[in-house]
Amino acid sequence: EIDGIASVVSRAPGNGPFVLAGSHLESQNRAGWLDGALGVVYALEAARAVHEAGGPGGVDVIAFADEEGHFGHFLGSFSYADTLAEETIDNARNRTDGTPLRTALATAGLEGTPRRHHQPGRHKAFLEAHIEQGLTLDGDGLKAGIVTSIVAIWQFRVVAEGAQNHAGTTSMARRRDAGAALRRVLMRVEDTFPAIAGPASVWTVGRITMEPGDPSIIPGRAEALLQFRDADPAVLDRLHAKLAELVAAEDAAGPCTLSLQVLGQTKPAMMDETVQTALDAAAARFAPAKHIRMPSGAGHDAQNMAPLMPSGMLFVPSIGGISHHWTEDTAEEDIALGAQIYVDAVARLLAA
Amino acid sequence: EIDGIASVVSRAPGNGPFVLAGSHLESQNRAGWLDGALGVVYALEAARAVHEAGGPGGVDVIAFADEEGHFGHFLGSFSYADTLAEETIDNARNRTDGTPLRTALATAGLEGTPRRHHQPGRHKAFLEAHIEQGLTLDGDGLKAGIVTSIVAIWQFRVVAEGAQNHAGTTSMARRRDAGAALRRVLMRVEDTFPAIAGPASVWTVGRITMEPGDPSIIPGRAEALLQFRDADPAVLDRLHAKLAELVAAEDAAGPCTLSLQVLGQTKPAMMDETVQTALDAAAARFAPAKHIRMPSGAGHDAQNMAPLMPSGMLFVPSIGGISHHWTEDTAEEDIALGAQIYVDAVARLLAA
Repeated sequence: EIDGIASVVSRAPGNGPFVLAGSHLESQNRAGWLDGALGVVYALEAARAVHEAGGPGGVDVIAFADEEGHFGHFLGSFSYADTLAEETIDNARNRTDGTPLRTALATAGLEGTPRRHHQPGRHKAFLEAHIEQGLTLDGDGLKAGIVTSIVAIWQFRVVAEGAQNHAGTTSMARRRDAGAALRRVLMRVEDTFPAIAGPASVWTVGRITMEPGDPSIIPGRAEALLQFRDADPAVLDRLHAKLAELVAAEDAAGPCTLSLQVLGQTKPAMMDETVQTALDAAAARFAPAKHIRMPSGAGHDAQNMAPLMPSGMLFVPSIGGISHHWTEDTAEEDIALGAQIYVDAVARLLAA
Repeated sequence: EIDGIASVVSRAPGNGPFVLAGSHLESQNRAGWLDGALGVVYALEAARAVHEAGGPGGVDVIAFADEEGHFGHFLGSFSYADTLAEETIDNARNRTDGTPLRTALATAGLEGTPRRHHQPGRHKAFLEAHIEQGLTLDGDGLKAGIVTSIVAIWQFRVVAEGAQNHAGTTSMARRRDAGAALRRVLMRVEDTFPAIAGPASVWTVGRITMEPGDPSIIPGRAEALLQFRDADPAVLDRLHAKLAELVAAEDAAGPCTLSLQVLGQTKPAMMDETVQTALDAAAARFAPAKHIRMPSGAGHDAQNMAPLMPSGMLFVPSIGGISHHWTEDTAEEDIALGAQIYVDAVARLLAA
């Protein structure tokens, strides 16, 4: 059934044991055919295979709504975990066209439909498959990634405030150029982060906005969206402390006022060792010496299942590491191989 | 009369000699009351005073259309200089709401109205008054600025092209971050320009755009609008060469592709020595020891009159150096003092 948040949920017949399996179906706009859908198809295949084999147990399949954040932030898996407030739904709007989520749900015929939540004790484990979206597998000819953890994402807004003025009549000495101050901070980030980051840390400045943005006006205000990711809380704290230090130093040096706003600080989600072991064994059977344990640099619904039950993820290769783009693809034999590993791991979890 | 480009033009009666006097009437959106209008009111006052005094000669007053660039780039003064092509008018649109200039002119009842051009030999000089838009006068308690030159504005687009990718799954080593490459170039500009710039040079990064601009996507393309201004062609050439060198160096270093596009390279306009001398004498009479010769860091219609006739400009103080903002202002006594200097200088030019 499609529940009240538009997740697609199913329950296997029988008395169990049960594994919960799935991923998401929507994609980024103009994105590829595998990011999300692959994990749902694998889950359906596992349900079919376990059912046809006569068990043991069964597979509940789920396609979580809104993993890509069109209306919110993992709304489907938060709803399933029963940590999504009605008020959050009331306020959610489509980020592209502004449609309220309530309107979209009503248009889909889901107004008043109950939301389905996790039933404590029902599932032995959650297993999600996904394309890697990176080059760890494809770059080294590997076929399966066993996810150890899903990194935390810490997001910040760095704001510089100066004085908007005429770009021709304001001498360099008298300027309070917010854009220049912001660029100094961002350059210090690039200079200092490598020495204190972890080996898998990544940091990104995805957007810079300068106001008013006119070529002949000195920006009076400038801001950058900066994020970093790591699975190690100590590394996250170190990067955060350094960023705060750099912002404070530029603020103290003047002539602009700098501030740092925290936009989000997720927790790293550790994948369950039992699930990883089942995936290791399945990968060793179908792709010997071509599997690796690795962290996920991207967020996935599995991070919201990890607090509820033993959870794990299987990555298959992405050609060229491309995702969130229509050229995203995976070789057909790698898709089939991944399905064999996935179904075998589910069977091992049910049999354990 | 209002001519076909919407400049307001007038011709003094009599046989001359004549001085052309004026500035512009439109302002930036939500800007102040003096930027432009002050120079037109001074010109009207000069015409009145010369007429009431019975000469010698007379004053033609002009209010140039579009000095602030709502539809183009100094369209009124270019039209008056007869260097504005019909095709430029055909293609011009309002930068705020996109209205074609032809439509706006027709709405104002000006379709088919002839444009008025400079009549060679008619004018002894052109004189424009304007608020300074900076702190050279107001910062030092001065009352009059005699403009020596109007700086050239050289505008560039710096473009960095890398590879758009996922901000979580793409390792730092594998990234081709166009935003990071662009910021390195801009930081080198700040590091190197001070040593090679002239004492009055100014440079500004007014806008940075990163595509796609999503906090979780490594920018595949980034661009900056950068301009610098100086009245010395040697300084302009030096800054341009350095900028090109920095862009080429980042391009050569990789991993991104950098390029530099020239968006505009105006010529500095030298103000006429005879006009400056007349302004000096008038300022010495009404504001002794409170006047200074200075370059203009902003563009003005006078730069388009300078190739046609001896041209000059008088600046009056701007409180706090503010312009292009509704708080722009000048003390009433400074406005009156400036008018006395301006009218006296016009009389000196007519009598010379």
